[in-house]
Amino acid sequence: METFYSILEKRVEESDSLLCVGLDPHPDGIDEFSAAGVKAFCSRIVKATAPFAAAFKPNAAFFELLGSKGWDVLKEIIDLIHEESSRSEVKIPIILDAKRGDIASTAYAYAQSAFEIIGADAITLNPYLGKDSIDPFLTFPGKGVFLLCKTSNTGASDLQDLRMTDALNSEKQEGVFLYEHVARLGQTWNTSDNIGLVVGATHPEALERTRRMAPDLWFLSPGVGAQGGDLETALRSGLRKDGGGMLINLSRSLAREEDPAKAAASFCDLVRKATQKNANQQALQ
Amino acid sequence: METFYSILEKRVEESDSLLCVGLDPHPDGIDEFSAAGVKAFCSRIVKATAPFAAAFKPNAAFFELLGSKGWDVLKEIIDLIHEESSRSEVKIPIILDAKRGDIASTAYAYAQSAFEIIGADAITLNPYLGKDSIDPFLTFPGKGVFLLCKTSNTGASDLQDLRMTDALNSEKQEGVFLYEHVARLGQTWNTSDNIGLVVGATHPEALERTRRMAPDLWFLSPGVGAQGGDLETALRSGLRKDGGGMLINLSRSLAREEDPAKAAASFCDLVRKATQKNANQQALQ
Repeated sequence: METFYSILEKRVEESDSLLCVGLDPHPDGIDEFSAAGVKAFCSRIVKATAPFAAAFKPNAAFFELLGSKGWDVLKEIIDLIHEESSRSEVKIPIILDAKRGDIASTAYAYAQSAFEIIGADAITLNPYLGKDSIDPFLTFPGKGVFLLCKTSNTGASDLQDLRMTDALNSEKQEGVFLYEHVARLGQTWNTSDNIGLVVGATHPEALERTRRMAPDLWFLSPGVGAQGGDLETALRSGLRKDGGGMLINLSRSLAREEDPAKAAASFCDLVRKATQKNANQQALQ
Repeated sequence: METFYSILEKRVEESDSLLCVGLDPHPDGIDEFSAAGVKAFCSRIVKATAPFAAAFKPNAAFFELLGSKGWDVLKEIIDLIHEESSRSEVKIPIILDAKRGDIASTAYAYAQSAFEIIGADAITLNPYLGKDSIDPFLTFPGKGVFLLCKTSNTGASDLQDLRMTDALNSEKQEGVFLYEHVARLGQTWNTSDNIGLVVGATHPEALERTRRMAPDLWFLSPGVGAQGGDLETALRSGLRKDGGGMLINLSRSLAREEDPAKAAASFCDLVRKATQKNANQQALQ
């Protein structure tokens, strides 16, 4: 059985892309916020961007906003991604952006819901409840998680940027940031190649620090585009030594385009150029 | 417009109870895990315990596990609680245990879903993303939130028990625990009487520390009963000076009883006795 991240690596290679296509059917961006409207909104993006997508990331909140119908639409969109996936050799991983986190027996229900009922391949999780709230998700073969580490919003500083006096293996007197501690936990807990991190592209320094703490993990990085993060800086700060290890999420900046396929292709070109430049600079050093 | 916590105070007074009835339709506890099975499971508990309930707390995960049908059942159960509520003068508040937490625009969608679509009065939230992830929930008049502070699981220590060097107003050299910092943030942010905290009844010392940081806030405390927390110790450690400020959650230990009404009534008696004993001891000091 392949692991979630080995499948992701293959898909990244096949698509030659680090693009994660976010599906955020926000009411403000849809003419008619209904099951049909949301389905049309997402289908358009999925069909246009599938050839360029290393992964898709539907945002559970906007489906939930439709009540029970929303869950049917989400399932339909996931089925559509599977269908589009069948044209490529490697299936396109689907990351459910749901930011769950609960005690063990409840967490197991969320895991079953995400992986078995909805059919996602990975899910975003909140680490505040600790290891035993993550464990139930790690028991599903081929499935994966992304732990929230350093998020792209301004409020992230309220908790994530606090310094810890007793974080494990703390080598500096001032203590590491809470998000660095989470990164280190993720790196330590990742014994079965199924844990990654959410690290906003809006904080290059945080990307660098997180990469030092978690040299092997995949990062899911929102914040480029609509949220203002600079792509080249983000990649330079967050890529692994092998030039991989980062999924750059785009949502609104694709959805707003008249031709999302063209926008996705251009973005992939930008990423390739930036990654190449980065590799050249590293080779010169 | 009354605030969420002023309504809760009234309901606590009317019912003379600090009991929060948890609705956790766990597949292991239900003969047939289906929409009908979950509905029957929850209806039985709601009808039996409504006279003794200061609040109800449905756990979103187990409804989600039924897919889209689960959301319809959740809505039906909430309607049933409203119906049972109509027999009392004060409506029985409904706390959706969903532990959400996301960046602002997504958080607003979760808030709308919880308060407008599902019809809950309050929701549990994860504070890891900071203030701007909480704010959207605080804009709904009469609605409230409970921030995860110190949870009842063992993994809670992974993050929540870390000490911070730079937590705000830190007066002690060793820094406060992360959960204490969250408690203090909750107390500071609670300018509109709509913020409470989730503090597990399994950690009396944490209850005491949290109460010192947040003297005014309501605590939602799971962990008594099935999870092994001692009721009398928990109340002594966590109650406000006025003898209120704590909702003690019971789920499995009510659902498992042949007569949940009798079990709820006995539990309320125990709480009253413990609260009275506590008040007497305080008067003697």
